[in-house]
Amino acid sequence: MTELIAVIPGDGIGQEVVPAAVEVLEALDVEFEFVEGDAGDAVLEARGEALPEETYELAANADATLFGAAGETAADVILPLREAVDSFANVRPARAYPGVDSLRPETDLVFIRENTEGVYSGIESEIAEGVTTLTRVITDDASRKIARYGFEYADSNGFDDVTVAHKANVMRMTDGQFLESAVAVAEEEGYEYDDALMDALAMHLLLRPEEYGVVICPNLAGDVLSDLAAGLVGGLGLLPSANVGEENALFEPVHGSAPDIAGQGIANPAATVLSAAMLLDHLGYGEDADRVTAAVEGVLSDGPRTPDLGGDASTTDVTAAIVDQL
Amino acid sequence: MTELIAVIPGDGIGQEVVPAAVEVLEALDVEFEFVEGDAGDAVLEARGEALPEETYELAANADATLFGAAGETAADVILPLREAVDSFANVRPARAYPGVDSLRPETDLVFIRENTEGVYSGIESEIAEGVTTLTRVITDDASRKIARYGFEYADSNGFDDVTVAHKANVMRMTDGQFLESAVAVAEEEGYEYDDALMDALAMHLLLRPEEYGVVICPNLAGDVLSDLAAGLVGGLGLLPSANVGEENALFEPVHGSAPDIAGQGIANPAATVLSAAMLLDHLGYGEDADRVTAAVEGVLSDGPRTPDLGGDASTTDVTAAIVDQL
Ligand SMILES: CC(C)[C@H](C(=O)O)[C@@H](O)C(=O)O
Ligand SMILES: CC(C)[C@H](C(=O)O)[C@@H](O)C(=O)O
Repeated sequence: MTELIAVIPGDGIGQEVVPAAVEVLEALDVEFEFVEGDAGDAVLEARGEALPEETYELAANADATLFGAAGETAADVILPLREAVDSFANVRPARAYPGVDSLRPETDLVFIRENTEGVYSGIESEIAEGVTTLTRVITDDASRKIARYGFEYADSNGFDDVTVAHKANVMRMTDGQFLESAVAVAEEEGYEYDDALMDALAMHLLLRPEEYGVVICPNLAGDVLSDLAAGLVGGLGLLPSANVGEENALFEPVHGSAPDIAGQGIANPAATVLSAAMLLDHLGYGEDADRVTAAVEGVLSDGPRTPDLGGDASTTDVTAAIVDQL
Repeated sequence: MTELIAVIPGDGIGQEVVPAAVEVLEALDVEFEFVEGDAGDAVLEARGEALPEETYELAANADATLFGAAGETAADVILPLREAVDSFANVRPARAYPGVDSLRPETDLVFIRENTEGVYSGIESEIAEGVTTLTRVITDDASRKIARYGFEYADSNGFDDVTVAHKANVMRMTDGQFLESAVAVAEEEGYEYDDALMDALAMHLLLRPEEYGVVICPNLAGDVLSDLAAGLVGGLGLLPSANVGEENALFEPVHGSAPDIAGQGIANPAATVLSAAMLLDHLGYGEDADRVTAAVEGVLSDGPRTPDLGGDASTTDVTAAIVDQL
């Protein structure tokens, strides 16, 4: 079977790291058809919209999408693309790699972030001059869905610790709902969990990351806590992510378009290649996913390094080394 | 002039660290009248309400309030007390102390957190079964007020870097308003600043805390980012805070009631004594404030230590050592 993969490099280093990940995918024994779509600042400039309808449709109809990064238009591109693939879960592993400098080498976390509601529902108005409101929506349906996904993810990926993050002492009804729904799923299915206030959790993740595993979060909490965890393992440079829907999914590095180094051929492709490994796993090619992940880990621990990791290798060098190790 | 200080120890170690801070204040050459008020879990149990009306009034009418901590009822106690003192700014310094183990010893941050609105406006409803909403309110007035306070604070406390935290790429109107109001104040008054997305900021604070100084935040962002900063300097144990109003103010350690160690006489009084120093400063006793801060720093660097800092001294020992160093 041929897998139709939408490829959306976007802006800046997206144009360098996405082709690198495609090269790695092409080196495998899987039949892919790659179709490229445009999005981002450059497209906005050229065509008046950051995310053309045909790119949206491409992602909506592909078997999976690989996205790079967008610049100023990031929110205008990624939020609709997550919708295009009907994504309800944003999966963000944050793990320290051997040989890579990190504040907390014992970190091995996966954030399971609700991807459809919370403050991202985006219902805002200026109800009087200088008085603005935003309606944060939390539903039982979406909360149960993300909780179920998170518990199953922990179960099938060997994590013992599951934490439900919330701020239910202040957002009593909305995060109260989020927590109540998660607890209901845990009780129905017999899962173990802890819950934690998101502020205290931010501190505890710094002080004792080894005590945590899977963290199930409302949308904005997942956004912030996963970036914090990126800080624990040395930055966004190595972190992959998946936006998972019922049928469809989109994979992207957590890093942005990095305009400061774009066009120089020195961007680290690791996060995007690891995102491609998540894509393989999602499509059912678990063994290929493991091979790609192992190859990236091998290169990170003793292969050529791009400047962000203290080396002077190019994106091409690192990509070739990853392909070599497959 | 006699200063009327409302003293509200609350639950758990609040009952130990607040008296310690009062002892330090009494050792100074300032005339205080201390009036104690009840609040917290124990009061809820005994009298059916966590914050009796007379405690609210006591705080509202005092020259300043010193609060300890509350247990399960924390939100029911502290949110109304902040209102009682008309607090618009929550000031949270996070600084590493010499001799105290910390992840990032170069950390010297002060969070200036908006203390009246955002998701704390608490307008919530269940609009249908399992569908809950919260209305997040951001106004030009409150945003200008906190921004002005933050810029002035940075100015008079020798901070060069001011960062305005927000998530205006998603909360376009509300955090857009917050940012726009802060920018307007900066431009009117000629202050320099940077702005940062709160997710990226969470990561950058871990990776390069030395590049930041004063961080002006919406309410929840300030809650989470200041706890994160506590993680950078070794935990909540040493962090003081001020809730500042136009006329009135309340001072509290950032830590909670610590039921696990309550009643053993081993709680670290440093955060509460440092909060008392902020109280002195607020009332105009700047020199006394500096003396108290220096005494705490002296004891932290080579005096007796409570078990949280690896020692075996009691609250009483540490308090006596602080008084000695005055
Ligand atoms: C660009 C922005 C809208 C996005 C988000 O907040 O989800 C980004 O921060 C992310 O985490 O992917
Ligand atoms: C207890 C809670 C309501 C409070 C808050 O969220 O403000 C606490 O976390 C704090 O930061 O003082």
